[in-house]
Amino acid sequence: MDDDSSLSHFYKGKEVLITGGLGFIGSNLALALVNLGAKVTIADAMIPGYGGNLFNIEPIQNQVSVNFCDIRDVNVMNYLIKDHEFIFHLAGQVDHILSQTDPFPDIDMNIRGTAVILEACKHYNPKARVIYCGTRGEYGKAAQMPVNEDAPTNPRGIYEISNLAAQKITQVYHDIHNIQSVMLRLTNIYGPRAQMMHPRYGVVNWFVRLAVDNEAISVFGDGQIKRDFLYIDDCVEAILTSATCEGAYGQVLNVGNDTPTTFLELVETLIQVAGTGRWHYAPFSPERAAQEPGDFYSDITRIRTITGWQPKTALEDGLRQTVEYYRQHKPRYW
Amino acid sequence: MDDDSSLSHFYKGKEVLITGGLGFIGSNLALALVNLGAKVTIADAMIPGYGGNLFNIEPIQNQVSVNFCDIRDVNVMNYLIKDHEFIFHLAGQVDHILSQTDPFPDIDMNIRGTAVILEACKHYNPKARVIYCGTRGEYGKAAQMPVNEDAPTNPRGIYEISNLAAQKITQVYHDIHNIQSVMLRLTNIYGPRAQMMHPRYGVVNWFVRLAVDNEAISVFGDGQIKRDFLYIDDCVEAILTSATCEGAYGQVLNVGNDTPTTFLELVETLIQVAGTGRWHYAPFSPERAAQEPGDFYSDITRIRTITGWQPKTALEDGLRQTVEYYRQHKPRYW
Repeated sequence: MDDDSSLSHFYKGKEVLITGGLGFIGSNLALALVNLGAKVTIADAMIPGYGGNLFNIEPIQNQVSVNFCDIRDVNVMNYLIKDHEFIFHLAGQVDHILSQTDPFPDIDMNIRGTAVILEACKHYNPKARVIYCGTRGEYGKAAQMPVNEDAPTNPRGIYEISNLAAQKITQVYHDIHNIQSVMLRLTNIYGPRAQMMHPRYGVVNWFVRLAVDNEAISVFGDGQIKRDFLYIDDCVEAILTSATCEGAYGQVLNVGNDTPTTFLELVETLIQVAGTGRWHYAPFSPERAAQEPGDFYSDITRIRTITGWQPKTALEDGLRQTVEYYRQHKPRYW
Repeated sequence: MDDDSSLSHFYKGKEVLITGGLGFIGSNLALALVNLGAKVTIADAMIPGYGGNLFNIEPIQNQVSVNFCDIRDVNVMNYLIKDHEFIFHLAGQVDHILSQTDPFPDIDMNIRGTAVILEACKHYNPKARVIYCGTRGEYGKAAQMPVNEDAPTNPRGIYEISNLAAQKITQVYHDIHNIQSVMLRLTNIYGPRAQMMHPRYGVVNWFVRLAVDNEAISVFGDGQIKRDFLYIDDCVEAILTSATCEGAYGQVLNVGNDTPTTFLELVETLIQVAGTGRWHYAPFSPERAAQEPGDFYSDITRIRTITGWQPKTALEDGLRQTVEYYRQHKPRYW
């Protein structure tokens, strides 16, 4: 409550633009911002197979402005960015397997698209605040755990490289052109409003689909690989809180969970919570094995120190809410 | 002699493609490769203001195949790469000041262009060997000196980010798609055959122009900033030698000079060698100050250990040969 009232004080009446705002994280962010009293514009390209889904914003459909457009459209972005105080930049190609067969969407959307947004800020709205959301994949295989923001960055795929390049471009616009920016590296986020048609966007949500459908979940390897799974509401709060902290600007901040979980624990908790589904061990596919970075969990000391944010949702609770959401709205996502 | 004969043994009859082969480093590489008996194809887009200059290859004009094309032309690159054993990839946007006003050429040429080349290898010539030439600017400000390949990468401009992204893309194609690649990070290279019309491609060669024209050279700050300047022949030998070493593939290697020089020493040596020119202290321009990484010199332990290469040319000798070349061919470069 305390957090919410201070966030509401901050965002009330603020003009915000969310790129990729009909996708998983963007739409949850839009819901939170509308509830906090912000004036929200959503930009989404509705690329087939991507995360955009109008149903995601059904509860706020009359309280947001939705603009169908691609972040690579320079004229449109120049126009849209002019009038917004905060740009939450979530649009992009986010399928790391696809990026291994075709590197060009990642380069074009994630790298060039981010530059389009920052150039628009530079020329038409230099006081805009930009919150760039990247991925923990920017680190690649962890040299030591937990992984802090100064760890080496050895991304293992084009998707991850494109995020790293976009983050570094954002840093340069912050440092050289004074476009105040926060650069986040999100861990594995799960929860309602994700794309659930294919398994390539997030392993937890895909496991949720399988459990809801009472199907078998493959646990790769021995199931002992550790990850820090983060519930969407915690992720949204991290994004919103960071944007309110002056000390966060110019910083790279991990948005993760300092309570790592093994895949086996994840699957067992999920099946218990769902009451359906089953699991078995399975070997890695060659593509996944090639990109599998092993254990990974984030050091969140920096974001906690700067913003006070930390995860609140226990895995069991997050999974329960996720299962309930998709059970209720299955036809909208399956 | 010994080096040359082993390089000649290696490259004799080899089909090699040099992208950006009419530019500064590419043309010097072409000359060396022709002299070693390789069958050289040069690809160059001849973009106005860039480094491409047909005069650069005047001594070998009848011994190379020149193809005017842009590395972003997917069909042309697919066709050209098919028949070459070695791809020396030097084409790109290399003006770090330009990249601050317009990020798109760097993203398009340096990042997407590199992906075009690697995709061409993947689909049409997976046995091709790729030598990617990046920049020491990928490191940004040095945390400690000398800078080795494991140092943090905090590039301070879009040009430098685009090189880092291209290098990491090359690494992924090496690791995941088995396109055998060497990734070099070149320090400040100087010598004959550079673009000399504007000062934005390399400070040493620009100073040479000013000295040859008996003009005043501005030494920024107090002149005590240290750099590792490397003569072009040493750079070419590093590129050629690395490509012959199995141990170099999959590696990032600094191509630098372990004898750092201050700008003041550089300018005094240059004016003495040239017998013309003068110098004075000057403040940094805001753009240069914003990107000025301070002292920088490379740790070349890794390339020396793996390949045996090390710089041979003393600064005085390199500058003398550079001054002589441009004095002789001034109308071709001024």
